[in-house]
Amino acid sequence: MDGKTAKKRTAALVGRLKKRGLVGAVITERANVTYLTGFFGDDSWALIIGRRAWLLTDSRYIEQAHAECVGCKIVQRKGSLVADVAKIVSRFKSAGALGIENTTSVAVFDKIRKKAGARFKKTGNLVKQLRAIKEAGEVTAIRKASSIADGALDQALKRLKVGMTESELAGRIEFEIRKSGAVAAFETIVCFGANGSRPHHIPGKRKLRKNDTILIDFGAKYKGYNSDKTRCFGVGKVKGEFQKAYEAVALAQKTAIDQICEGVKARDIDAAARKVIKDSGFPVFGHGLGHGLGLEVHELPVLYPKSKEKLLAGQVVTVEPGIYIPGKFGIRIEDDVLVTKTGPKILTRTKTSPGLGILKCK
Amino acid sequence: MDGKTAKKRTAALVGRLKKRGLVGAVITERANVTYLTGFFGDDSWALIIGRRAWLLTDSRYIEQAHAECVGCKIVQRKGSLVADVAKIVSRFKSAGALGIENTTSVAVFDKIRKKAGARFKKTGNLVKQLRAIKEAGEVTAIRKASSIADGALDQALKRLKVGMTESELAGRIEFEIRKSGAVAAFETIVCFGANGSRPHHIPGKRKLRKNDTILIDFGAKYKGYNSDKTRCFGVGKVKGEFQKAYEAVALAQKTAIDQICEGVKARDIDAAARKVIKDSGFPVFGHGLGHGLGLEVHELPVLYPKSKEKLLAGQVVTVEPGIYIPGKFGIRIEDDVLVTKTGPKILTRTKTSPGLGILKCK
Repeated sequence: MDGKTAKKRTAALVGRLKKRGLVGAVITERANVTYLTGFFGDDSWALIIGRRAWLLTDSRYIEQAHAECVGCKIVQRKGSLVADVAKIVSRFKSAGALGIENTTSVAVFDKIRKKAGARFKKTGNLVKQLRAIKEAGEVTAIRKASSIADGALDQALKRLKVGMTESELAGRIEFEIRKSGAVAAFETIVCFGANGSRPHHIPGKRKLRKNDTILIDFGAKYKGYNSDKTRCFGVGKVKGEFQKAYEAVALAQKTAIDQICEGVKARDIDAAARKVIKDSGFPVFGHGLGHGLGLEVHELPVLYPKSKEKLLAGQVVTVEPGIYIPGKFGIRIEDDVLVTKTGPKILTRTKTSPGLGILKCK
Repeated sequence: MDGKTAKKRTAALVGRLKKRGLVGAVITERANVTYLTGFFGDDSWALIIGRRAWLLTDSRYIEQAHAECVGCKIVQRKGSLVADVAKIVSRFKSAGALGIENTTSVAVFDKIRKKAGARFKKTGNLVKQLRAIKEAGEVTAIRKASSIADGALDQALKRLKVGMTESELAGRIEFEIRKSGAVAAFETIVCFGANGSRPHHIPGKRKLRKNDTILIDFGAKYKGYNSDKTRCFGVGKVKGEFQKAYEAVALAQKTAIDQICEGVKARDIDAAARKVIKDSGFPVFGHGLGHGLGLEVHELPVLYPKSKEKLLAGQVVTVEPGIYIPGKFGIRIEDDVLVTKTGPKILTRTKTSPGLGILKCK
């Protein structure tokens, strides 16, 4: 992040705080701290008062903070984060009420209120709403994260062989991501056969068979930004039902993506995908259709039946319908899509979408 | 987890709640939910009322919940977790006040209080204190996690070569962990040379040189339980100052571990290590000496200068003093130690401790 971006982000937050009658805010959520200060470490908070910004961190992170932070004063705390916030806040007591993120724990909230001797008001999603609209540099980072993940998958699939475990394939993908200088965005999900029916299956000892199916949900995190994608493959001979379900999911995904555009209701996108699956006669997936992503794998907005928002240009969302048949198989296809004023831009197809790749396997 | 263990854990919590005049509790912290129900998924809560227990989860996890849960009723929520908690709680309104973990966010706390129409009292660390004392099965899992991590390090070091990046070595270690059917406990830290002075350095493109130093902080998670260990190595010729600092850290660690026993104050263990480093003339580390570990990498108790607790038999703690010289090098040695009534039991030395291994490298 450069100085100009840091200033712009802080100013945008200050504007939103002002509308709520607040002169500043305590930022305790890690990704929000990163967004405002450029700092990627853990266990650290940001404090904004007027146009001043502080990062409160500890000795473990002090070198990193000096290397990463932009436009804020770095404070190496001696005691607790609460005590250090209180110390700074007490100097600006007369300035007015401060916001505190409502994702802060009740324990921390109670302590801050007690120690800081200032007025606090709970705020929800202020920074998260800013984060939902991506700057050009953020979109570039997500694209790059996706391209790294694609390369890693290609490399890993070259070594696919019958008898390989889910764990080994997951590990191989993550290793290839690491080799590219990125890290896995989350624990890679690899499911063989019926294990695919659990959307959050943990890869285990199940071995790849001569005739089998594979579901891979994976992503890379590059310069702090995540990609998130799911692909399915057949190995050897694939049953007709699997093929049919795959085509239904692919159509559901395409139908939903085609409708993505600024101003469209998030729940309408979700409903479009669900309708295609329902019409196909397969059971409709129980999870949401998708979620925003960026510094975190799950961000705003959320695409699900109860969503109340309309999509805004600059948002990046996953679109990931699925069909799950317990004991048989699971299919999910997931891509990351940028919302623009004129329609969708898919960020995760650095090469042609694989469709249902039928892999040959030693 | 078996049924007997689940019952024992829930009964222990119920006893602690009773002492506080509470008839049950809403458990929102993931590892606490796992501890009480056996369920390893995310985005799910446990609810305890009297001797009844519920797991509230969603469709993504329902198969997993049925496979993992012990001794609780599984509820697949339709709406929000808050709404489902409220629905159950309203049936037991007259029973009395419920606890709610004070790590819960203020937003969720406010909503539950509003919707559930019952009395709630914030509770701190009730389940975490139970978790701090490990059962025999938990110690076995940590030991196994450590042994997997050791094997992975051995395999990865076999492929060490000049020109390899930190990222690649970190990725190789994690791949070997995955191959063993476990996952990395946290993002593996690999630091070459001066990068070691940042205790939470993120592995990058720095290449291994002919004469170099390596710090590796890594662990495996096996059946939900974590190991956490740090080892340092010299490559080729190592400077005398590095060697001297290594010996000081090793002595500090040994001195601290030797004092570990039920009843000893946590801060005295911390002070013992700090004194050795101070006497050596090197700068004293800014972080705590160690932390409990188990289902999470950071648990109770904490070993640091302000700790107020005494150690209890059954606790497992890391002991990890270090010396950090910015621009030059960093050294940390970390092992996981079981507290017993008669002294320490080191869980992370499945083979002889490597000391300062001097590696030969292609």
